[in-house]
Amino acid sequence: MQASNDIPPAAGPAIILVEPQLGENIGMVARAMANFGLAELRLVNPRDGWPSEKARAAASRADHVIDAVTVFDDLASAVADLNFVFATTARARDNFKPVRGPVEAGRALRARQQAGQRTGILFGRERFGLYNDEVGLADEIVTFPVDPAFSSLNIAQAALLMSYEWMKSGLEDETKTNFSSPDMMPATKEQLHGLFAYLEGALEARGYFRPAPKKPKMVDNLRAVLTRAGFAEPELKVLRGIISSLDRFSPAMPRGDGSPGDDPRRLPAAAARAAKAEDND
Amino acid sequence: MQASNDIPPAAGPAIILVEPQLGENIGMVARAMANFGLAELRLVNPRDGWPSEKARAAASRADHVIDAVTVFDDLASAVADLNFVFATTARARDNFKPVRGPVEAGRALRARQQAGQRTGILFGRERFGLYNDEVGLADEIVTFPVDPAFSSLNIAQAALLMSYEWMKSGLEDETKTNFSSPDMMPATKEQLHGLFAYLEGALEARGYFRPAPKKPKMVDNLRAVLTRAGFAEPELKVLRGIISSLDRFSPAMPRGDGSPGDDPRRLPAAAARAAKAEDND
Repeated sequence: MQASNDIPPAAGPAIILVEPQLGENIGMVARAMANFGLAELRLVNPRDGWPSEKARAAASRADHVIDAVTVFDDLASAVADLNFVFATTARARDNFKPVRGPVEAGRALRARQQAGQRTGILFGRERFGLYNDEVGLADEIVTFPVDPAFSSLNIAQAALLMSYEWMKSGLEDETKTNFSSPDMMPATKEQLHGLFAYLEGALEARGYFRPAPKKPKMVDNLRAVLTRAGFAEPELKVLRGIISSLDRFSPAMPRGDGSPGDDPRRLPAAAARAAKAEDND
Repeated sequence: MQASNDIPPAAGPAIILVEPQLGENIGMVARAMANFGLAELRLVNPRDGWPSEKARAAASRADHVIDAVTVFDDLASAVADLNFVFATTARARDNFKPVRGPVEAGRALRARQQAGQRTGILFGRERFGLYNDEVGLADEIVTFPVDPAFSSLNIAQAALLMSYEWMKSGLEDETKTNFSSPDMMPATKEQLHGLFAYLEGALEARGYFRPAPKKPKMVDNLRAVLTRAGFAEPELKVLRGIISSLDRFSPAMPRGDGSPGDDPRRLPAAAARAAKAEDND
């Protein structure tokens, strides 16, 4: 199937609200659509008419969606130009339609869109959803993995989830984010070992490694803690700064009971806790 | 890491709202949580105090979440018993924290929960989100794949997406739905061929297959259309009923121009369109 040549391909599925009751909900649907890159909103017989100032206010500046809303007298007209339509519903229907989850539905919509098809998603009335004959106008059903004990999803929430899955279906990698983690490549071992040498020297000078026979195990533990974290070079610099700063307190200004080796506050917190836990074994 | 022995493991991550401004939003968060099986809602300094009748009304009967809300004076206290915390934010922060998408975050929360850890997700104020020092109390950041041109997500919508991804992370198969497609195993070929024989017999009796040299191609087309649909046995019964019903009109009550072979309304719509399209080639 191909879209008619005289209609430009839409940027995504049309969201179709059947007899929505509250302007606020229409506005929140528009906002959710805008969050995830959808722009075509169709209304079938909105109860309180159209335009709606309540809808515009609730859309929270998604004016481009509100301005482009189209209104229809009946559902058949609202889907007339579409090649494929999903109906959202929270309950099983006695018909032959395939039932999809939202992830699968998002991918199916993306694939159809890429094949030049025009698609849409139907959402029912706030109070009782879609009638069976309205579901009958759709090709397939999409339903959400809600807790069966609390399954009533607000139409704006339902529209949000489908808009979100639409957006996700277009990402090469669904773990992709709009901004990225800092470059946290672990530092080289040479850099890490430099920190060990510096820290262990500072601790040694304070008599931390006592009694002497325990030193090898204490060093092992300390290095294990600082290795497992996989610190990047900038983090090592922060740690070195912390150690350097602590280093200045002593020996001129010893803290605790004067036996620095017994004072866990001398160490970065994680290392201190780990060392202490080992001591308690 | 293990949760303390004296605290029972929670059923899912705690949702933590930092200085939420509107009771309606708190209620909508509670509803979204209930939709996807979460129950533990914590508030840090809600602006209009607690309890809130507006919150209860907006929760739309998610009373079990509202009744169990706990209120804290500061964020550190609100996360004190947790082993791992995500902060949600729409903008990049200048820190060392890993950034995840919601799918990845849902899976990470599930894995930690299964390992006995207690987890939480922070959501900021409606107007300006979380301060940097609040993000600093979290282990990692989660952000949503919103349209950068319209990235402001309502806190109830953000909480909905994380609750939804939490629920999904517990499904064996993310395409699983609460109710299933009808059993649409294609009918056996014997059943399908039975329909062909019945339909073709009825059409033959009306002189549909004219001119005679075209009959093999017409039969091929008709069978191709009825085969591609992959009809299940109950669907074949519906089709047989339709054909049988149409069959009664004629020859006593012919329709159209009296030449039944030229009247596409005689056939199920899809077959009629396909046959017509072929005729136009």
